[in-house]
Amino acid sequence: MVRIKRKVEVIGLELPIFKGGEEVDIAELIKDFVEDKDIVVIAETLISKLEGRILKKEEIKVSKEALELAKKVGKEPEVVQAILDEAKEIVRVGKNFIITETKHGFVCANSGVDESNVIGIKLLPEDPDRSAERIRRRIKELTGKDVGVIISDSFGRPFRKGSVGVAIGVSGILALWDRKGEKDLFGRELKSTEVAIADELASMANVVMGEANEGIPIVIIRKANVPFGEGRGRDLIREKEEDVFR
Amino acid sequence: MVRIKRKVEVIGLELPIFKGGEEVDIAELIKDFVEDKDIVVIAETLISKLEGRILKKEEIKVSKEALELAKKVGKEPEVVQAILDEAKEIVRVGKNFIITETKHGFVCANSGVDESNVIGIKLLPEDPDRSAERIRRRIKELTGKDVGVIISDSFGRPFRKGSVGVAIGVSGILALWDRKGEKDLFGRELKSTEVAIADELASMANVVMGEANEGIPIVIIRKANVPFGEGRGRDLIREKEEDVFR
Repeated sequence: MVRIKRKVEVIGLELPIFKGGEEVDIAELIKDFVEDKDIVVIAETLISKLEGRILKKEEIKVSKEALELAKKVGKEPEVVQAILDEAKEIVRVGKNFIITETKHGFVCANSGVDESNVIGIKLLPEDPDRSAERIRRRIKELTGKDVGVIISDSFGRPFRKGSVGVAIGVSGILALWDRKGEKDLFGRELKSTEVAIADELASMANVVMGEANEGIPIVIIRKANVPFGEGRGRDLIREKEEDVFR
Repeated sequence: MVRIKRKVEVIGLELPIFKGGEEVDIAELIKDFVEDKDIVVIAETLISKLEGRILKKEEIKVSKEALELAKKVGKEPEVVQAILDEAKEIVRVGKNFIITETKHGFVCANSGVDESNVIGIKLLPEDPDRSAERIRRRIKELTGKDVGVIISDSFGRPFRKGSVGVAIGVSGILALWDRKGEKDLFGRELKSTEVAIADELASMANVVMGEANEGIPIVIIRKANVPFGEGRGRDLIREKEEDVFR
């Protein structure tokens, strides 16, 4: 009457701790752990470090605008300068937070600028989709295996408290999965069912990663029913014009 | 240098298909599959059916307000009436969607009213936290095992396309996990890190459930590092007054 229909494994990999700027081939490091059709989720922090997206505070020149905003929100001026430099637009400002639209188009707190788990100020990868694509191709080259790759981060959101894992870079799988036209339990067509499957996979990986402070920056998801194909993290961005909350 | 540090299992259970109103003891059905410290995630659809939260269209009396709104958004008047009856407030209205705050306080499309996988119009459970609590206690009673229970649904969100799994009812684990004060990779304190762990677990389960149309309404998450304790789904609701996007 009740039976196990599907069993997915979520495997957390411990890696050495990097400070930033090291020459590291991630695909080479993890190649023995990867199987065909796995989803490899990599914490944005690791990518940012290895791509040298860390600023030293003393090298940041603070503008008058950043100084004023820093006072207003109660943040360090250097951090605010980095947030502004990474932003396309300021969306909302409040006590100790600045919500921006980043140059990539992500709406998130502080342009994704962060000081946790790094020495200095960490920026988001310049092009997380490109980073994901590069690693996916390299895994294929080294192992012959086809995988999906997701670069994950944690974002807050309106209406609900707390942060959740999101996919900022995607390669090898669809980010947005349109299930319209599939049949429901009673044989009728599902309506308007677009699933942010890459975000769900990033949240899934986040449960195993924790807050990237446990030394697990990479998670492998095995035997999940996911749509392989040519998706991009940017497919998940809702355009400003289409967004009733902007 | 690289090693497996954690392995989490996500197990999808196939159940018989229920039409609604059946007398079913969920804990009894799944008791042989549950281990101590598991997280049991149950699709809201299943709970709503078993709690009789299904309306027949012909029994709904349509008000003038619902009729007008139905024309405006392009939905059936009966469905709009159900949406209004379940709402505390209308938050945004657009082409084929009505975003409301439900009586529970959730901000979501159509007050969570839905016609997929049911015969009739499905409403959210009246009190999903209570439903989760009841099932958790019953599992304890039948098996002696302590588990966390989550009632999950799929919500859309601002800024990002597609829906993701969220926890509308929680019992036995924290819904919101404050990791402030923990140390980062370099031994410094993490700042302002509140994780919506129950939402992440709901998204994790969603990956295995699909759109509830695959006959997997219950997912068991095993060996995850989660905070057991007295959480509630309502802990995840951001109050209107605190929300810069309301």
